Amino acid sequence: MEWTQEEMDRIFNPRVVAVVGAKRDTDYTWVRSVLPLKGKVYSVQIDEREIPGILELGIPNYTCLQDVPEAVDYVIVAVPRAVAPRVLADAIEKRVGGIMFFTAGFAETGTDEGGRLQALLTEMASKAGMKVVGPNCMGIYNPKVGLRFSENQAHGEGGNVGFLSQSGTQAHLLSTVGYSHGLRISKAVSFGNGIVLHAADYLEYLGRDPETEVIGAYIEGVPDGRRFFRVLRDVAAKKPVVVWKAGRSPEGARAARSHTASLAASSRLWDAVLRQCGAIQVDAFDEMLDALKALAYIRPTADRRMGLVATTGGQSVSITDAFASEGLLVPELTARSYQEYAQFFSIIGGSYRNPLDMTPNSGTPKLIRRCLDILGADEHVDAVAYDFNLGLATRERQEFWEGLVAELVGYKDSSSKPFFVSITAGHREEQALRLRQRLAQAGIASYPSFPRAAAAFRRLVEHAAFRREVDEAG
Amino acid sequence: MEWTQEEMDRIFNPRVVAVVGAKRDTDYTWVRSVLPLKGKVYSVQIDEREIPGILELGIPNYTCLQDVPEAVDYVIVAVPRAVAPRVLADAIEKRVGGIMFFTAGFAETGTDEGGRLQALLTEMASKAGMKVVGPNCMGIYNPKVGLRFSENQAHGEGGNVGFLSQSGTQAHLLSTVGYSHGLRISKAVSFGNGIVLHAADYLEYLGRDPETEVIGAYIEGVPDGRRFFRVLRDVAAKKPVVVWKAGRSPEGARAARSHTASLAASSRLWDAVLRQCGAIQVDAFDEMLDALKALAYIRPTADRRMGLVATTGGQSVSITDAFASEGLLVPELTARSYQEYAQFFSIIGGSYRNPLDMTPNSGTPKLIRRCLDILGADEHVDAVAYDFNLGLATRERQEFWEGLVAELVGYKDSSSKPFFVSITAGHREEQALRLRQRLAQAGIASYPSFPRAAAAFRRLVEHAAFRREVDEAG
Repeated sequence: MEWTQEEMDRIFNPRVVAVVGAKRDTDYTWVRSVLPLKGKVYSVQIDEREIPGILELGIPNYTCLQDVPEAVDYVIVAVPRAVAPRVLADAIEKRVGGIMFFTAGFAETGTDEGGRLQALLTEMASKAGMKVVGPNCMGIYNPKVGLRFSENQAHGEGGNVGFLSQSGTQAHLLSTVGYSHGLRISKAVSFGNGIVLHAADYLEYLGRDPETEVIGAYIEGVPDGRRFFRVLRDVAAKKPVVVWKAGRSPEGARAARSHTASLAASSRLWDAVLRQCGAIQVDAFDEMLDALKALAYIRPTADRRMGLVATTGGQSVSITDAFASEGLLVPELTARSYQEYAQFFSIIGGSYRNPLDMTPNSGTPKLIRRCLDILGADEHVDAVAYDFNLGLATRERQEFWEGLVAELVGYKDSSSKPFFVSITAGHREEQALRLRQRLAQAGIASYPSFPRAAAAFRRLVEHAAFRREVDEAG
Repeated sequence: MEWTQEEMDRIFNPRVVAVVGAKRDTDYTWVRSVLPLKGKVYSVQIDEREIPGILELGIPNYTCLQDVPEAVDYVIVAVPRAVAPRVLADAIEKRVGGIMFFTAGFAETGTDEGGRLQALLTEMASKAGMKVVGPNCMGIYNPKVGLRFSENQAHGEGGNVGFLSQSGTQAHLLSTVGYSHGLRISKAVSFGNGIVLHAADYLEYLGRDPETEVIGAYIEGVPDGRRFFRVLRDVAAKKPVVVWKAGRSPEGARAARSHTASLAASSRLWDAVLRQCGAIQVDAFDEMLDALKALAYIRPTADRRMGLVATTGGQSVSITDAFASEGLLVPELTARSYQEYAQFFSIIGGSYRNPLDMTPNSGTPKLIRRCLDILGADEHVDAVAYDFNLGLATRERQEFWEGLVAELVGYKDSSSKPFFVSITAGHREEQALRLRQRLAQAGIASYPSFPRAAAAFRRLVEHAAFRREVDEAG
């Protein structure tokens, strides 16, 4: 079954939301999450002991979905599984835009009763043409309209990163951790068992969504591989799509069955098809985060020649190994660059071959900027990475660090080459968190280690190379 | 040239230290670093403008090394390179225990003058039998005696981790970052160009040092491969040795030449020999840190069957993939364990197959402890890993988290199986730093992601398997 963009938009941008089954036990979390909604929130709760707590939050309650005095765009359901079919029937009768089931206990349990209930929900929804998100999921997050599935999630500001996930945890983490890394979500969805709306539906939707420029997907399995890959190929031709195929190992596949009742195809098949589709592959949360940051912040390039700036010779060796082991190049610079560096670099305790080795306590922010400008102008260099070293300074150097951030931002704004930063925190881990946020605010992606920076950038380069090939072929 | 343990002990545990060339420009950092020395510190500085600042720090100054009124065990030298031979001559005449040159500008510059001066120092020292650390290095760190090369380094408490490094930065970072991860250094040394004392000398020394139980080595190149590997084989037969061979890529090798004038052999050769010697191989700083933590804190085992506890189903899939991709096993549990779990696990929204999926807000610390105890007793499980999830909770749960730490410590103390923790910080990164330190204080290694936890434990398992083979063969 496929859906129009308009139909999907109704549940992703709801004006009226109903929460069915909010409870004191869970601190009315489903109501609290949607309090920022730019629109109207209603509660549906029949249990009289639960109602006062809901009213206290300023949310009107009805004992039945049909009684809600206006059209409902999106229903959030947290009821025991046995009650789920009745709530779905009410939603169908009310002609809501769509319904999300946090409720779990279906096919993922491997029990007859769970399987029977899931089949019943599927049949009811299909017959009625009702969009179901889940069950066994967290549903939709749209920060701009204030639709959340956790109070930890930011709201108010929209973004350009779309995320679809069979795991509520990964969607939760990606939106909250991502936020503190500067990623801004356009729309995210956790869809668990995915009985009506499948990965392909969400991917198609985000592919057409004008606010979404970069897409991440956490997938445990897809019911209709042919359709999923067709959609993926189409979407990936327009927007970068990062795919984390989980349950790759036989043991992980078993865990995926217990989680979302997903049946995994061979991971080799997935690898091959994802590559053909031009998707960017990752295998863990940090890789997903890092790749999305690269796509959201770093100017894309298909060229691999790095200009690297490190602090100290030891860092120069290890940053070079990290980039080289990802297949990136660290070439010698042009004679002209060497001549310029020779004017102000001392030969002792520093090097300007590439990587530039700035030595820890030498150099003003202005001098570092000058070094970057020379690298940025060098014809042998396609992209520049700077290691911001907090760990070696003997004392706090707040003023220097702030001046340096300003120069890095200045360089980034003036250069047409891709630019990003690694942060060597050392023991200054809390300062590093603040620095990362400061850089993110300025639109500079930073990574907590050389290998992570190199791997993220390599994915960006590979993707740009794929796009270039496609464009040239077309 | 080889050295007795007693000779080496004199420079690693100096009673009297002289600093030559301390300067206001660098805030007298070399004097400040050794202020905590349990012993006597002297300064040697001829420049009258620099002397008052040194005296202000309470350190007596002499204008010549020979004037220091007692025997000197270890000399720290930070003078211009042209002066280095004269200081070395003074040290030889004074019959000091050993001399360290922070001074750089030798063979690593690739210049004739640098090469000439390095050859001169080497010849002078060799003829006199003088132990030289460096040049182009940071020298020795021994927290117990208060000998440091940076004010960032802790002092007072000794440890069991030895570290030898051609890079001062890596030695600095390993000691400071390591400290905040719970690693305690016995002795560390940065030795740069290593013209007299080589990697093999330090490795041999740490191998014999009774305080050192685990050894890490950052190597860019060795002048005498045969001797290094012979020493490595002998030491690795007694103590675990983690080796980070840097400059693996051709570009990294070029950076290593500029850094410590090291000539790299092929990385394939290194891989093969390191494996034969039973060294544990790593390729980046975080891998070194993680491996040392595993060796220092986790009970070794050569067996691979993991019992995993995660929070939520999505985490169960991803933790399983992470361990499986490192060749570790995630087996089904015994029927007996399943029977025990069935008594208190609800079938909905959680799973107890392995991984155990605890669901975010359910479960008391006592219940989690009970789950761990069952895993710990399960005959299908060789080691247990717990994911401490801070990121999913909607509110701070300080009391719960503290209770949980207490139960984890209780489990660890009562179990004979290897046990370690991953921390899913989510957006609670500062809390995660504190949690990591709290766990480290209790002797529990923790890792910031599933892949890092799995990789560190895999290295521990591989090393234990190697040792078992050697023991069986012997």
